Amino acid sequence: MPNRPTLCVVGAGAVGGYYGARLAQRGNDVHFLLRGDFGAVRQNGWNIQSCAGDFSLAPGSFGIADDARKLPPADLVIVTLKTTANDQFESLISPLLKHDTAILTLQNGLGNEEQLAGLFGRERVLGGMAFTCINRVGPGKIHHIAEGWIRLGEFGGGPSARADGIAKLFNDAGIDCKVLDSLLRGRWEKLSWNVPFNGLGAALDWTTDRVIATEAGVAMVTSLIEEVKTAAAALGVKLPDDIARRQVDKTRPMGPYQSSMQIDRREGRPMEVEAILGQPLRHGEAAGVAMPNLRALYTLVRMIDQGRPHAKT
Amino acid sequence: MPNRPTLCVVGAGAVGGYYGARLAQRGNDVHFLLRGDFGAVRQNGWNIQSCAGDFSLAPGSFGIADDARKLPPADLVIVTLKTTANDQFESLISPLLKHDTAILTLQNGLGNEEQLAGLFGRERVLGGMAFTCINRVGPGKIHHIAEGWIRLGEFGGGPSARADGIAKLFNDAGIDCKVLDSLLRGRWEKLSWNVPFNGLGAALDWTTDRVIATEAGVAMVTSLIEEVKTAAAALGVKLPDDIARRQVDKTRPMGPYQSSMQIDRREGRPMEVEAILGQPLRHGEAAGVAMPNLRALYTLVRMIDQGRPHAKT
Repeated sequence: MPNRPTLCVVGAGAVGGYYGARLAQRGNDVHFLLRGDFGAVRQNGWNIQSCAGDFSLAPGSFGIADDARKLPPADLVIVTLKTTANDQFESLISPLLKHDTAILTLQNGLGNEEQLAGLFGRERVLGGMAFTCINRVGPGKIHHIAEGWIRLGEFGGGPSARADGIAKLFNDAGIDCKVLDSLLRGRWEKLSWNVPFNGLGAALDWTTDRVIATEAGVAMVTSLIEEVKTAAAALGVKLPDDIARRQVDKTRPMGPYQSSMQIDRREGRPMEVEAILGQPLRHGEAAGVAMPNLRALYTLVRMIDQGRPHAKT
Repeated sequence: MPNRPTLCVVGAGAVGGYYGARLAQRGNDVHFLLRGDFGAVRQNGWNIQSCAGDFSLAPGSFGIADDARKLPPADLVIVTLKTTANDQFESLISPLLKHDTAILTLQNGLGNEEQLAGLFGRERVLGGMAFTCINRVGPGKIHHIAEGWIRLGEFGGGPSARADGIAKLFNDAGIDCKVLDSLLRGRWEKLSWNVPFNGLGAALDWTTDRVIATEAGVAMVTSLIEEVKTAAAALGVKLPDDIARRQVDKTRPMGPYQSSMQIDRREGRPMEVEAILGQPLRHGEAAGVAMPNLRALYTLVRMIDQGRPHAKT
């Protein structure tokens, strides 16, 4: 990573907008690729209401384009696209690449690194998880409610100066970021929450407190997490024995929390069915693990997603 | 069955009210045990709007009570309670029994005959299925929209003069009724529709047309029916190989049909989760059949049922 790297954020929704704006606020050379809010952000900049301090970024203090070919070659591409748009990786990312460009995906779920590696080369790819509670409240307007930390690692595994350098960029911008020993473990740990709470939240249109309000609900959440745990183990990742109980306990104080997939369902937007449910299912089944509850949940949520008005099936 | 038997209908909702009223219209000695609508029906009688001909029954032309101890001993008890009230069998039915009283359950799903047999003796019990599209539209007011035929048989299996006699009672009252060679086969055939369409209708709050509107939906319905077919086979009932396709084809012309469990969900009433989903699952699994989709669906619907406001869990 050069001293003042060129950073391109692909898919500047709430997550990409927030982290990109924090990096730009610190003086980094940040460029945003966005579509829907392009006009508004170009004209008015970013307006961030954040539990870590409100701030605005004036137009001119960052790069912006609605076409990747209008952006400079990047040292680091930060991918924060919704995974339902992953079929656009090629056109959105290719124009940004030079021979040593790194690509960091902060997207949800499983399979994003694989897709990027398949298209652009395994050696470029890092993955990370953004643990944050954040919403887009209007064009260029973001409300960062809580948390905000990032955990990232090389897709190929192991430590690297590059991963350390990226973590330093985030930390210098006030974002708690650590490098993971194992990205795979991090992904599966996060899945052990996302699978039950995003999946059931979407299937039932229920907030997380309602999902675990009944004995049947806790039993279903537990079964799903046990399946995730068994799949992870088959893939070499040992999650804690009592992870199901831990995730339920962790979720109780969250109150009536709407998972991202529940919000997408309510708003009639595509849900991240494949990244959060389909990919873990396929990875687990390919490793010989039966995941009957996840399989049924995946099918139900896919039915709901396909059944949206005007959905592409 | 004596020449003019005493008939007691236990649980006079839409199904019990309609069939009982038809039997009374034909001059049979019919008594209704009901709770919620007791006052209204005692005062105003029955008012039936029916695709087979509208009619009314004036007060005095039938017996009525809100307590089984106020009804005469019956030759035939017709049970049309919602299965969620099966825990009241003892208090509702015991007072009606003499030594040779027959009990016919026309309730939904699996397990009702077993429960009645366990309480009152196997030799008393017959089971039947009412294929009808019928709604209670107000106290004592019923709208019979379509179909209406009954198929029944001895719980113990085989032909009997008693079953023939009961079928004749219905047929004489203008209700198409046939005696089944195998009640068990009839139950599982009906389950092969009820499991997917009531179950998914309740889980998703979707009409039947929406359930099969997508490829994922047809796949899920097919998986569930295949599980039901395999369970039935393990219990000695061979359903047609192509029953999944047949049930989907049969459902297409029904349009936006609300299954009874979907209606119950919408109205916040207890759903017949155990009779329609739980019992088939337990029977199948006890016979060594894996029913992963039904198990997940059952758990989800139980979550929804338990999650109703003020639900007893």
